[in-house]
Amino acid sequence: MKHIQVGVIGFGTVGTGVVRALLEKPRLLQRRVGTRLALRWVCDRDMPRPSGFRLPAGIATIDPQRVIDDPEVQIIVEVIGGIEPARTLVLNAIKRGKHVVTANKALLAEHGQELFAAANKHGVQLAFEASVGGGIPIIKILREGLVANDVDTIIGIVNGTSNYILSQMRDKGMSFHESLLEAKRHGYAERNPSLDINGNDAAHKLAILAQLAFGVPIRQKDIYIEGISSVSQADIQYANEMGYRIKPLVIAKEENSRLEVRVHPTLLEKKHLLANVSGVYNAVYIHGDLVGSQLFYGRGAGQNPTASAVISDIADAARLIASGNSSRNPIVPTGPHRIRSFKRMGEVQTRYYMRFTVIDKPGVLARIAGILGRCRISLASVHQKERKAARIVPVVMMTDEVKESDVRRALRRIDRLPFVKQPTVAIRTEEPSSR
Amino acid sequence: MKHIQVGVIGFGTVGTGVVRALLEKPRLLQRRVGTRLALRWVCDRDMPRPSGFRLPAGIATIDPQRVIDDPEVQIIVEVIGGIEPARTLVLNAIKRGKHVVTANKALLAEHGQELFAAANKHGVQLAFEASVGGGIPIIKILREGLVANDVDTIIGIVNGTSNYILSQMRDKGMSFHESLLEAKRHGYAERNPSLDINGNDAAHKLAILAQLAFGVPIRQKDIYIEGISSVSQADIQYANEMGYRIKPLVIAKEENSRLEVRVHPTLLEKKHLLANVSGVYNAVYIHGDLVGSQLFYGRGAGQNPTASAVISDIADAARLIASGNSSRNPIVPTGPHRIRSFKRMGEVQTRYYMRFTVIDKPGVLARIAGILGRCRISLASVHQKERKAARIVPVVMMTDEVKESDVRRALRRIDRLPFVKQPTVAIRTEEPSSR
Repeated sequence: MKHIQVGVIGFGTVGTGVVRALLEKPRLLQRRVGTRLALRWVCDRDMPRPSGFRLPAGIATIDPQRVIDDPEVQIIVEVIGGIEPARTLVLNAIKRGKHVVTANKALLAEHGQELFAAANKHGVQLAFEASVGGGIPIIKILREGLVANDVDTIIGIVNGTSNYILSQMRDKGMSFHESLLEAKRHGYAERNPSLDINGNDAAHKLAILAQLAFGVPIRQKDIYIEGISSVSQADIQYANEMGYRIKPLVIAKEENSRLEVRVHPTLLEKKHLLANVSGVYNAVYIHGDLVGSQLFYGRGAGQNPTASAVISDIADAARLIASGNSSRNPIVPTGPHRIRSFKRMGEVQTRYYMRFTVIDKPGVLARIAGILGRCRISLASVHQKERKAARIVPVVMMTDEVKESDVRRALRRIDRLPFVKQPTVAIRTEEPSSR
Repeated sequence: MKHIQVGVIGFGTVGTGVVRALLEKPRLLQRRVGTRLALRWVCDRDMPRPSGFRLPAGIATIDPQRVIDDPEVQIIVEVIGGIEPARTLVLNAIKRGKHVVTANKALLAEHGQELFAAANKHGVQLAFEASVGGGIPIIKILREGLVANDVDTIIGIVNGTSNYILSQMRDKGMSFHESLLEAKRHGYAERNPSLDINGNDAAHKLAILAQLAFGVPIRQKDIYIEGISSVSQADIQYANEMGYRIKPLVIAKEENSRLEVRVHPTLLEKKHLLANVSGVYNAVYIHGDLVGSQLFYGRGAGQNPTASAVISDIADAARLIASGNSSRNPIVPTGPHRIRSFKRMGEVQTRYYMRFTVIDKPGVLARIAGILGRCRISLASVHQKERKAARIVPVVMMTDEVKESDVRRALRRIDRLPFVKQPTVAIRTEEPSSR
């Protein structure tokens, strides 16, 4: 029986989960993979002492180059995160002909082209299951399970922190800031949660998913990004009264060879499965021409779910090595594809939730409706929210399907009206089941 | 660029979907798989003329042996269904060293051991993604995506016909028979739907899933099976009033190395994701030690979803051939496993919904409650359903978690009481999120 040696670089949260599973489940893995996975090195700048299990003697090191240079090691796991030194280490490992497993979505989003080109050149795998969706094997599902499908829609909840915050706001009536504090208290938000809240983490993940599904390179600047910090308790409640929930979605849709990729808080009808994905859970909805609608749901982060994804990549690399060591398939199958262009955000069409904050006097509604009408925005419903003894009232409207650029034009004009007292809140809706 | 030749045996619904996708998507598949998949043969006893597309000249045949004997063909797709001649054809193909892709769950359930042993002996894949969950890549998810997990729970809705019937009964107030007729009208039930309705189709699929997850051979007789035909409109309504839906579940759970495998209609709390899987959709809930709870949702049957699954197996076999042609991993990794025994159904513990049909007179409730108490069945709630001007009334109870054998013993005694006018209905409940 062959042994396949693995080196793990990074011994933080995820690295510890990977190391523990490799040490604690050798027989399970050997039975399922068909070869023995031997942990040869665990590397970190300052090797912490693991709690709850014991590292075998002689495998800890503080020198990543030693791990990469070891000719016996065939699989390198990079779980240090960040751009450097991760990028250089991954490139060096690839150049030495080693398969690399990474959970580093920022690295892939910023340097993916360079790294995948290097992996293809050197005939090795650069595997990244853990970069999106935590323990949900969404990369494998897209690349292998749905290989025969032309995907036209991906809609996902891929940032657990954002989803937790909006879920708490809805369930407990908390404000955004109270909910963020709560997330930090439970360890669901990092000390600096800005990447999660401003939508950039979700955009990194969307880029990876959409690139796989549509075969076209996607840069961060191709993605429209809006964070969740502008979502207010009032909007959550009004949406609720109309039968909707506000979820932090990533969306990629193709129509007539044009692709739209966007990240923003979105209204979803309560009955949709995605609307019922709460707390730190993630889910990805995919519509393919053969399979129709599918949804994949699970924990999107955390030590063990992420370790599960990393080990599935290690197992795939090990099977590959055992069967002859050629790279299994183009890693990111970009190349000839049917996408002609990205849809500009202004062209995107959705239904809109709008909340106007106006002085309650005759003629106000007519003026607003008039501007909307002239901007080709037709209304599905109008809800005048009355507040006793208040001269300033919210007016909530739901539009039909309208063009983003028309909405922006209308809101610019409406927000200049003297009786409009606050910038109008506008949140897009999504009906994934309609495709 | 290598060509890999494929022979499709069976040109019915699924075969047609597979053939059409192979003919219509050669470039997509080549880009994603890395090799060209060439359709060499399409075989059926009486070759029907396909509608909507044209078969290339020279690939139709009525002789399956010709397909199997063709030395150029490396992958055989068996989509004729049934036991014979499917079994003999699959065995012959394996013996000739060809990878086999099948959608035939009955064949796997009845002859899986023989077929997988032959595949292992001859170093070929026997792939079966399409046998469970239609287009959901659940086999790949279990075998590869969750490779590092000790799974302790699988709960699934894997029979679309049953799920459609129960969904129609709930949504439209139909009786079981009206709903079955409706399913037939829409093509969601076969002319002879007994395998779907009596739970046997679901049990075949559960055997496949549980075998993969727990690594233990499972025969049909190890599975407790109850169909859906006894579910009445009244029970659906009472369950609804108490916050539950009745779903056709397959359940496999391990606890202390003992496995329970069962198929029966089950109450689920409405808020659970599985309770919201309606119509012909399938879903599989999995709980693993690393990933926690996951759910996979999609169309469980139909020409195109099934073809999607078959082609993902073809693609995997093609990648394997391209990379050196050894079998990728033990196909059904049975062997040393931690399951010591199957739990007998009598030992299974769940909460129970019970509906008694009794004459409405003083003391009746006390008698029933007394028997339940002496059989160690404690009650969570009692709902007396009043029907005006009727002496015979339903009494609905929800128990705490109790042992199946105690329930059976109690109901045998209760159903013998003179004021009990119909056999008591008892339906198990399930709370998948509690693990």
